[in-house]
Amino acid sequence: MESMKQRRTIRRYQEKDVTPELLNELMEIACRASTVGNMQTYSVVLTRDAAMKEKLSPAHFNQPMVKKAPVVLTFCVDLNRFSKWCEQRQAIPGYDNLQWFVTGAVDALLVAQTFCVAAEERGLGICYLGTTTYNPNQIIDALQLPKLVFPITTITLGWPDESPEQVDRLPLEAILHQETYHDYSADDIDRLYAYKESLPENLKFIEENKKETLAQVFTDVRYKKADNELFSEVLLETLKKQGFC
Amino acid sequence: MESMKQRRTIRRYQEKDVTPELLNELMEIACRASTVGNMQTYSVVLTRDAAMKEKLSPAHFNQPMVKKAPVVLTFCVDLNRFSKWCEQRQAIPGYDNLQWFVTGAVDALLVAQTFCVAAEERGLGICYLGTTTYNPNQIIDALQLPKLVFPITTITLGWPDESPEQVDRLPLEAILHQETYHDYSADDIDRLYAYKESLPENLKFIEENKKETLAQVFTDVRYKKADNELFSEVLLETLKKQGFC
Repeated sequence: MESMKQRRTIRRYQEKDVTPELLNELMEIACRASTVGNMQTYSVVLTRDAAMKEKLSPAHFNQPMVKKAPVVLTFCVDLNRFSKWCEQRQAIPGYDNLQWFVTGAVDALLVAQTFCVAAEERGLGICYLGTTTYNPNQIIDALQLPKLVFPITTITLGWPDESPEQVDRLPLEAILHQETYHDYSADDIDRLYAYKESLPENLKFIEENKKETLAQVFTDVRYKKADNELFSEVLLETLKKQGFC
Repeated sequence: MESMKQRRTIRRYQEKDVTPELLNELMEIACRASTVGNMQTYSVVLTRDAAMKEKLSPAHFNQPMVKKAPVVLTFCVDLNRFSKWCEQRQAIPGYDNLQWFVTGAVDALLVAQTFCVAAEERGLGICYLGTTTYNPNQIIDALQLPKLVFPITTITLGWPDESPEQVDRLPLEAILHQETYHDYSADDIDRLYAYKESLPENLKFIEENKKETLAQVFTDVRYKKADNELFSEVLLETLKKQGFC
């Protein structure tokens, strides 16, 4: 529990390797996570090879963790394996649709997070790469993913070579709704974001980006509407290409 | 680690309550999970009230856990709170699209699974309800979810009143690919599914359902193509209704 309470994302790693034995042990634990109908509609692609990291790097906007971490893991929705099994057993699969993309994504993400909790418990550090769904087509090419397989998230993994401060979170009141969703009043928003907005690192963030508010750093610099819409188009096209809609 | 290795899904619970203090502690831990840009694009709706469980029950095809568990938690993608904050801070949000539905789903599922691992470590039992994305519109109505909020998974939670056997998993070789995705040959499929197909409970499953193969139980009884396609349509319509595409 303590490693879960104290967790930090780790972006810098020691040269030290993560042994195949440890990696397999953690992956076995991860596969104990809940899975729809015990179908295990996911696959994980392990990257250790420097040339493969080089290939993946642009898909993740060349974030340095990809090339520097000893291990990169790409967690994929996988309805290919299950469908192949069906076809080989006189059964007609029907998993080439949006519902099973989402169901497979749930499966894959429960495995990913179970892996991460177990890895952190062992002292390893991880970083999630949200870029995975921005450039899925590049990842599909690099990892040779067939139809009905789709990369949903990526983590970099290694022994920590930094010990960053733990970052802030919104108060629990902002997240947890009792019985029904209680929509936020203007006062609620002010109260719930007050602590985040008061933090020196966030004030610095506004100044560095020459913005008036912290929210503007998100909307005008980090996650812009035009980019989001472009990435949505790519995502939809790639879902079609992989046979999910 | 031991509770992760030994985990089982629990569908029967004692009458004993889960205290608000314990629930909040576990939720605080869950919120330490990684989140895109520290935006926390999720909300959780807590159901304890019997009348609310009654309302949710049909959306989950009346699976008995919903009414019998002391606690039901619906994990939602939430871009409403963040967008409201942006609007109140002279920032124009652009999160009403498919990319942010998927990004929010990643966020919400990492929180859900962290919650479950922590809960199981404390001796609680959980069951995921995959029905959440089959009938999202009914859940949206019951929990009064506004635009840009979408239920992605549900768990039932309580103190275990059963101790089921641990179920099988595919060998790790089936899941983990080295460097690139290695597509499955006919021999691979036979080898990887052999253990699952040999299990007495699965042989019984074929007989009870009067099928020739285990795969046919999945395709003809449990997760049928026509149902999957209908649920995909509902999912897409509900994504549109909630403003994600």
